[in-house]
Formats: sequence, structure tokens, C-alpha cells
Amino acid sequence: MGPHPAVAAIRLAVRRVLHDILVAHSAAPSATSSHSAPPSPSSASAAPGPRGSAPRDDAPLVLAACSGGADSMALASALAFEAPRAGLRAGGVTVDHGLQQGSDARAAEVTDRMRALGLAPVEAIGVSVGRSGGPEAAARDARYTALDAAAERHGAAAVLLGHTRDDQAETVLLGLARGSGTRSLSGMAWVSGAGGRYRRPFLQLDRHTVREACLAQSLPVWDDPHNVDPSYTRSRVRHEALPILEKALGKGVVEALARTAQLSRDDADALDAWAARAEADVMTTAPAAAGGAQAVHLDTLGLHGLPTAVRRRVLRRAAIAAGAPAGSLFARHIEEVDRLITGWRGQRAINLPGRVEVRREGGRLVIRQG
Amino acid sequence: MGPHPAVAAIRLAVRRVLHDILVAHSAAPSATSSHSAPPSPSSASAAPGPRGSAPRDDAPLVLAACSGGADSMALASALAFEAPRAGLRAGGVTVDHGLQQGSDARAAEVTDRMRALGLAPVEAIGVSVGRSGGPEAAARDARYTALDAAAERHGAAAVLLGHTRDDQAETVLLGLARGSGTRSLSGMAWVSGAGGRYRRPFLQLDRHTVREACLAQSLPVWDDPHNVDPSYTRSRVRHEALPILEKALGKGVVEALARTAQLSRDDADALDAWAARAEADVMTTAPAAAGGAQAVHLDTLGLHGLPTAVRRRVLRRAAIAAGAPAGSLFARHIEEVDRLITGWRGQRAINLPGRVEVRREGGRLVIRQG
Repeated sequence: MGPHPAVAAIRLAVRRVLHDILVAHSAAPSATSSHSAPPSPSSASAAPGPRGSAPRDDAPLVLAACSGGADSMALASALAFEAPRAGLRAGGVTVDHGLQQGSDARAAEVTDRMRALGLAPVEAIGVSVGRSGGPEAAARDARYTALDAAAERHGAAAVLLGHTRDDQAETVLLGLARGSGTRSLSGMAWVSGAGGRYRRPFLQLDRHTVREACLAQSLPVWDDPHNVDPSYTRSRVRHEALPILEKALGKGVVEALARTAQLSRDDADALDAWAARAEADVMTTAPAAAGGAQAVHLDTLGLHGLPTAVRRRVLRRAAIAAGAPAGSLFARHIEEVDRLITGWRGQRAINLPGRVEVRREGGRLVIRQG
Repeated sequence: MGPHPAVAAIRLAVRRVLHDILVAHSAAPSATSSHSAPPSPSSASAAPGPRGSAPRDDAPLVLAACSGGADSMALASALAFEAPRAGLRAGGVTVDHGLQQGSDARAAEVTDRMRALGLAPVEAIGVSVGRSGGPEAAARDARYTALDAAAERHGAAAVLLGHTRDDQAETVLLGLARGSGTRSLSGMAWVSGAGGRYRRPFLQLDRHTVREACLAQSLPVWDDPHNVDPSYTRSRVRHEALPILEKALGKGVVEALARTAQLSRDDADALDAWAARAEADVMTTAPAAAGGAQAVHLDTLGLHGLPTAVRRRVLRRAAIAAGAPAGSLFARHIEEVDRLITGWRGQRAINLPGRVEVRREGGRLVIRQG
């Protein structure tokens, strides 16, 4: 008899990602893991190694990022099962955010559980969470910094994250609330980070399946009280907004949101590529500014011929190139700059965040930092 | 003392749209209104005509589509006020969907109210609502068919619709639930229909302001019981989903959704334009099929070089050109066809709705109806 269907599903998801990692690793071994011999191309595409045989000590290492919650415990269990069969080593990292009483003891417990699954090396990393961008963003920043450092330290080929399709749906709704367009609707990527370090095998699995896999394997899991704390936006989205949306719009909402993420990501990528090409086309040679930042000069006629979506992306890129901080540059800024092109009636210069000034001088848009 | 701020807001919104209509009308008078002399360019951009002076009998006519509800009664009132000042005639149309007991009497009452506002001509049109696509889609189809016919009959330059920013937010959420990408998130357009006939002056005004304008003018309004009937998806979105989303994500959700609509529309337009150009580039001359529909031949190498978002749009266009019905063609169909390009391993032909078959033959994708 095979494994429980939910267990089979999480293992298949991890197996596919491990295959991709092996292919990527054998094609271009990363600098951090150059001490380990890359597997030969044939081993990348070959069938899994003999069952039960331990991977070589110099086999590439894949880490599971594990909070001890159901999603990441399922991930750790599937990685422990699949990695040796793919000729890979499997380790685990848990991050202690230090935000709750006894979090250090809990982190130690999570490392014990990862060891019990057969992961090695296993590590708990304590971080100190700042305040920048709100509690959720600050915790996330601290977490990824710690995971990056762990991946470097261990020379890991990849770090797996346990985000599910439900997490993806929540991320899309959070992006929708910002109202800043297609890129903000594109959720989390399958592959992200430096050199494609982070991978999310469960992004197409629903949370229910992943939790069932924990039950079926009798895995002890820990429920983070933050996940049900209504002072966190994501928690409100999960427990209030999504259930009501499903009630109003039908059961397929989570799937529709996850699909929206993928389609939006493809669209945003294509438009960014167009904008990069268009920017090169309309950028005229900029004379070196006397003692200031480099001014960016754009040809207004060329800009005028672009579709709105592309023109505004070019204007945004140029403003950032001239020194405007991306995080403070909002749609209304870019729309105002755009009116120098599409609604020209002799407006005066426009001031953008970061002391960047945009003015139209004849057939040119001149963008410079003051 | 000027009008109530809400009344000023709805009038300004209508005034701007009337200005656009005058500009469009004087630039290219439509065939249906060619019997009326287009206003001279100067009158289009000039200040409003003398207060109280009636527009000429041959002035262009603008119709308000009015259900008798608050949004469209506000629209009718603002049109009645602004049109004569812009040198335009203002009329009104109400559609009797015949779905409720006494709907004909109510339609007659709405025409009375429009006449009382000074609109002329005024008309009630009875329609018979089918069942195709569900009750909401069927009612909408019947309504627009009737409005189109009324616009033709009266030689109207434009038909104004009372949709507010809140309606737009609901439309975006409904599109999100379909999960079919950027175009489905683009909501309702400012200008739509044949020759840009339909205009939505209130698309950036919130429902609260529009309703306040009715109160301030003591306009009698009618509340459509369908708007609070939870068996209608839109009603559930309005009364259940959006309030909870605001609670979870903050007060700016409606505005963020409306902004998403505009950004998505711009993005979808740009990508469609790219796909149209790319299609022309990769389409190779198709030999006339013997006795069947024309086959479409696409160059696989050219397709491979396109970004995913553009390539899939090209494939969708080609499948429709070969005879697949757009409404039955889902993302999963196009993804499967796409794998003939990006994941070629000798797959057999793929069957699409409408008896359209796609097969790869060497360096070509051949799409034909069987």
C-alpha cells in the first residue's frame, strides 16, 4: 500500500522541485557550493538513487525553513523523505524571532523534531526583529536575512519554504489592497532570492492537504498564535476576508487568486521587459550634471508613441534612476509626470520624492536630482 | 451660495464628460447624428452657454440611462443641469426588464421623474430577459441591446451610465473570482460601446457622495430589491464581501480596487497590442484548407522567443481565429497548447473547444478546425 494521498501529494511537490534544483545545480553550480562536486548531468535527469542509500557527504544540500507549524513540518518531512532518493542532502533551519515568551525553547524543540525526521545539519537561529515597515514586514526581513546567512554558511543549493496556495491567495488580496497594479498582484514566486535560492514547492497545494499530510504522518505541529491574532492584517485576511469571499463568490476563490498571481506575474514581467527596451530607445544622451547626480533625458515624441502602461513604467524607471526612492514613488506622482507628455500645456517642473525634479524642455523630459 | 458639495461633485463629473463628448462629436460627428450640425470647435472648448438658454433643436443629444435608483437619478439630475449649459440636449431612457410585478408602472413613474427634471425626449423601453449566462448577464444583455436601439433611434451622441467607484470595485472583485487575469480585473471602462457611445461620469465618485446629492436635491429614488437580494452574486459582494474586506484591509479598499481596474486596463491594452503585432510576425502563410476553415500556421521559433504573457495571448488569438469560441477557451487550454512550444517532447495533437485541433509539425504550430 502506498502512502496516504496527502503525503503522496507533498512528496511529489518536493520531488519536482528537487529535480529542478539538481538540473539548475548541474548546469551552473553556485559559488557557495563550489566545494562540493556538482552532480554529473546524467545524475540530474536520471531516476532517483537506490532507496535507503545515504547521499554522499559532498552531495548538494537543500534546507527546509521550518517554523514548526503544520505547513513547514510537512515540508521538512517530505524533504527528509525525498532528498536522499534524489542524491541530495537535506537539512533544516528554524528562525527564533524572539517575539514571544519561551520562543527559544520552542526553537530548540523544532530542531529536535527536524533531527527526528532525519535532517542534518539542523540549526536554530535567533534574530532581533526591528520595526521598519510594520511588525509583519520587520519579522519577514529578519527571517530572510537569517535564512540567507544560513544558506551561505552551509553552502546550501536551495532553501525550501512551506507557503501554500492559501498563503498565495492571501498575498494577492494584500497586494490588491495596495491598489498598485499588476506586479503587486503577482504574489510569491516559485523561485526567488539570490540565484534562485528560495523555492516554494507547495504553492499549488491547498493548506488542507498539507495539514492532512501532518496528521497522516502523526507529525507534532505548533500553531503560531500570531496566525490567529486579529491585530495582524494577514490573520484578518485568512480568518475573516477569505471565508466571506468564498461565501460571496464561490468555493473557487483561493484557486482563482492563486491563478491571478501567476498570470499577473507573467504580465508584469513582459511589461517590465518592454519598458526596459523602450527606455533605452527614448533615452537621449545625458550631459554630465555639474556636481550633481546624473540627469536623465527622455525624448517626448518617443514617449508619446508608447502605450500608457509602458510609458508610465519608463517614467517610473527614469525617476528611480535619477534618484527617487522606489518606495515613496506612487502612481499619482507618475501620473502627474505623464501629463507633461499627454497633457502638455506649459506646466511647471514637477517635484518627486528624493528631491527629484522633472521638467519638459522642448522635445525632452529632463529628470534630475536637485 | 453654491450648490451642496455632493451636487457640485456630480455636476462637475458630468460636465467633464459632456466636454469630452463635444470634442469627440465636433472632431468626428457620428453617422447617427449627422443630421445635426456639429458644434464649431470653439464652442466645444468655450465656456458654457448663457444660463437658462435652451439648446438649439439640432444640438447633439445625450441620454441618461436611468433605473430610478439613486445613482442614475443623480446622473439624470446632473445631466439636466449641465447639458443646456454646454449647448447640448439631454434626454433619458429607462429599461423595464419585466422581472418584477408592477415593473411597467414603475418605469412610467421613472419617465415622469425624468421629465420633471427637464429631460426630453424621455422613454421607457420594455425588454424580455433571456436566460443565457445567468440572470445578471441576461438582464445586462437585454438592457444594453435596448439602450443601443434607443441611442440609434434618437440619434444620440452618447448614453451616460451611473456606475460609481463602488460598482467598479465590485466588478473587479467579480473579475478576480474568475481568476482569468489582467483583462478580467480591468472593470468597466470610462468609455465603451460602439463608437464610444457609453460614458460613465461617476466612475471615480463614491456611492455615498452620489446618494448624498440625491438627498440634497430631494430627488425621489427607488431601491431595487435585487440590489439587496443575496441570491445575486453582486449583491453578496456589495453587502457581505466588501464590508469585510474593508474591515480586514482598511478603508481604502474600494479606492484600491478602482485603481487596480485602471492599471489593469492599461496593462491589458498594452499586452494585447503587443500580441497583435507578435501574431503578425510569427504567422506564416497558411495554405487554404480543402473545404474547411482556414488553418493558422505559427512559427514555433518566433513563439519561443516571446515572453510567456505575450506568447499565450498570441496562442489564444490564433485559436479563436481558427474557430474556437472565446467563451469556452480557458487558461488551461492555452497552457496545454503552450507546452507544445515550451515543453516539446513529441506530444500528440491537442483538441480545443469548437473542434479546433492544434498540432506541432516540425517548426510550425498548425491550428485548424476539424
